[in-house]
Amino acid sequence: MPSDTPQPSFVLVRPQMGENIGAAARAMLNFGLHRMRLVAPRDGWPNPKAVAMASGAGRILDDAVLVDRTVDAVADCSYVFATTARQRDMTKPVMTPERAMEVAREKIAAGEKVAVLFGPERAGLENDDIALANAIISVPVNPEFPSLNLAQCVLLTGYEWRRQSVEIASEATEMAGTDWANAIEMDKLAEHYESTLDSAGFFFPETKADSMKLNLRNMWSRMPLTRADVQMLHGMLRQMVRWKEKG
Amino acid sequence: MPSDTPQPSFVLVRPQMGENIGAAARAMLNFGLHRMRLVAPRDGWPNPKAVAMASGAGRILDDAVLVDRTVDAVADCSYVFATTARQRDMTKPVMTPERAMEVAREKIAAGEKVAVLFGPERAGLENDDIALANAIISVPVNPEFPSLNLAQCVLLTGYEWRRQSVEIASEATEMAGTDWANAIEMDKLAEHYESTLDSAGFFFPETKADSMKLNLRNMWSRMPLTRADVQMLHGMLRQMVRWKEKG
Repeated sequence: MPSDTPQPSFVLVRPQMGENIGAAARAMLNFGLHRMRLVAPRDGWPNPKAVAMASGAGRILDDAVLVDRTVDAVADCSYVFATTARQRDMTKPVMTPERAMEVAREKIAAGEKVAVLFGPERAGLENDDIALANAIISVPVNPEFPSLNLAQCVLLTGYEWRRQSVEIASEATEMAGTDWANAIEMDKLAEHYESTLDSAGFFFPETKADSMKLNLRNMWSRMPLTRADVQMLHGMLRQMVRWKEKG
Repeated sequence: MPSDTPQPSFVLVRPQMGENIGAAARAMLNFGLHRMRLVAPRDGWPNPKAVAMASGAGRILDDAVLVDRTVDAVADCSYVFATTARQRDMTKPVMTPERAMEVAREKIAAGEKVAVLFGPERAGLENDDIALANAIISVPVNPEFPSLNLAQCVLLTGYEWRRQSVEIASEATEMAGTDWANAIEMDKLAEHYESTLDSAGFFFPETKADSMKLNLRNMWSRMPLTRADVQMLHGMLRQMVRWKEKG
């Protein structure tokens, strides 16, 4: 576990079910987060149900910091987010998870300590908890069905943390390193098909031959073909000719 | 439920636990998605455990389309994403959920039908399922702990769909109004080439035949083919066979 990576702490405030604490630990580790703090878990601590659910992410539970009050959980933090489902009139900035984790990244890069509060399963955070926060995170859910559970809320926030901190070049990962065919290879492929299909009598009637050839060339040029694709397409056609020649 | 909003269909391929189907339905509805398709759920359909878990999102299950094979689930779709945890060398674009839902939004805005495939809980999608896809969605998880479950994968993809679809695209889409081939047409094309090339002895040696066939299917599925392209490709092959038969 890369325990030195600067990252926010995730604070579960008065969580109820052990299973949900375990599921939250897994969701954190999925996105490389491992600093969990627990405020007064309902069923005490440690909790065997949390351990069972966390399988593979158990070290997050082992290292979790246990405190009695929310204020103790964020005592060392200079910037605190509170996650809420409902919008409340708290006169604080309300941010999407994306914007919030962008802010978190900037603050952490500047040496600040950042925490994110997650409320108990049913009731959510109380006003006293939210009063400790500098900003609110609100996930843009369907207003007719805004029922995210604790681990899901942790998952989405962790996902945005990783997106913000890893700088995923989404364009660059698309088939990065693929060996695309170049224009000469594409031209030779088009040539091969055109001449073989000509011999096979495909471009018929002759009045339509030119436009058929143009359509075929246009199709090849629109195709995102790799070198391997081009080799395969040549091989397919050669094999068809061999087959014909065998009679 | 806003049943007329254009949106992708989420296809659960051979899901095992009813609870996970119910949780996926909830995750979809959280982000305003309601088009579920089910391919051969292990425990049959309807499934009371799915209904119990879906509470509040039961209508998604009621409206779910049940089919036997993955190809039937995407038959009307011109663009298909496959979600995978492991990277595989399938020579298809690999996209983050963000980029994928950006692409989905553009395609849907241009009138295309889009589907996202989610694999069974443990094993994930099989190569034959992935061969039907135009692109792969890979969630940028912690490589040391990449254990997203089915509902979490649905949740993150749904979240990105909502993020992308709430910011409405104003840019004009290239090739809007193009008559793209759908999955059935693509499947028939792949079938036609596979069987003819088989007769021609292309898939040789036999030890390599399966991987050659998979490569070929993957190539077709990556190609942005129009209906006219597909007709031309069928015609080319038919003409080669006629040529052979003339001797």
